[in-house]
Amino acid sequence: MAKDMTLLWGSGSPPCWRVMIALEEKGLQGYNSKQLSFEKGEHKGKDVLAINPRGQLPAFKHGNITLNESYGACLYLEEQFKNQGNKLTPENKAEVALMYQRMFEGLSLFDKIRQSLFYDRFVPENERHDSAKKRNAEGLKDEIKIWEGYLQVSKTSCKNLLVFVITFYFFLNEEHFPKLAAYHNTVKDRPSVKNTWPSNWKDSPGMDTLKNL
Amino acid sequence: MAKDMTLLWGSGSPPCWRVMIALEEKGLQGYNSKQLSFEKGEHKGKDVLAINPRGQLPAFKHGNITLNESYGACLYLEEQFKNQGNKLTPENKAEVALMYQRMFEGLSLFDKIRQSLFYDRFVPENERHDSAKKRNAEGLKDEIKIWEGYLQVSKTSCKNLLVFVITFYFFLNEEHFPKLAAYHNTVKDRPSVKNTWPSNWKDSPGMDTLKNL
Repeated sequence: MAKDMTLLWGSGSPPCWRVMIALEEKGLQGYNSKQLSFEKGEHKGKDVLAINPRGQLPAFKHGNITLNESYGACLYLEEQFKNQGNKLTPENKAEVALMYQRMFEGLSLFDKIRQSLFYDRFVPENERHDSAKKRNAEGLKDEIKIWEGYLQVSKTSCKNLLVFVITFYFFLNEEHFPKLAAYHNTVKDRPSVKNTWPSNWKDSPGMDTLKNL
Repeated sequence: MAKDMTLLWGSGSPPCWRVMIALEEKGLQGYNSKQLSFEKGEHKGKDVLAINPRGQLPAFKHGNITLNESYGACLYLEEQFKNQGNKLTPENKAEVALMYQRMFEGLSLFDKIRQSLFYDRFVPENERHDSAKKRNAEGLKDEIKIWEGYLQVSKTSCKNLLVFVITFYFFLNEEHFPKLAAYHNTVKDRPSVKNTWPSNWKDSPGMDTLKNL
């Protein structure tokens, strides 16, 4: 039981989900969990700001230790609970390198998703351009092709779990991206994933806009 | 001697510099080093693409292992050469957490620098807006204030070295950001830093545009 841990999170946030999956995989159930609403702006409320001055979710504490960056929280949890639950990181040096490489590349993917899918949320109306939207959509498609290519040449396994939540974010056209779809299908039935599935996505696992890529 | 390592890099790139500093700190001199020119587009050349399909620098290989993401390369080098050179990561669990937290937050800082200082490079002329430039400059100033605040409450030491290159990127007004300036001054004389100082910045260590923040 992880009574000394607190996680403030929002449904539909890949970084929040990433930490929740890591906690499940490490057998760290029973933490203080509080779901907040992005729509109501609760991520800018004082509970969050007390832990995360950026006013972002997740906001995570283990005792007096704060770790709001989701990948950082995953790496920390693996190091502190090495012999508990499932191992999140590989042993072999080539696989360690690949994990780090893909983890940081995952941030590029996340950034491209944000730029394309949430363009209207982040760009004020008078600054929007169709040319930018088109370029961002192409950038995202190219990025997804890179990941599809990676999966052509490497086995998918639990070792990739740290990256997983981001690929999960899609509801891609399976014919266009068969390797990503296969990866999605491999991981989606893990108990850690099923137990933490965002309520926002109970009916649909992702973004239908991506079906056309 | 690190004859089995190859680093392709460009002068003035914080991610490149980060890897070069890490190699120095770990005593891994003697690697195959090749400087390329961003201005001439050499980062999109076939030597780079053979290692880094994104066409970005750094492009780094250790034997058959590729690690192009700079933080990933630092973490990997520390793990593979634990007992060699200087230790780049702390032992204490609170410090480990803080390192991960700041490392990933460093990416936000880097992103805000890019959005503000390199706006004209990344945004086509017909899509530029003064309102966006103003907002980006304010976003960068707020971000730098967050880092100044962090340094008010924590000791600066070699443990922060993984984040270091980014703060170095500035040539900030010392009166406005005395803690960051002090940090800069603490680290700039380390041999690893002096030995790898970007030739682009031999005369000026940073960006004068930041003097007005």
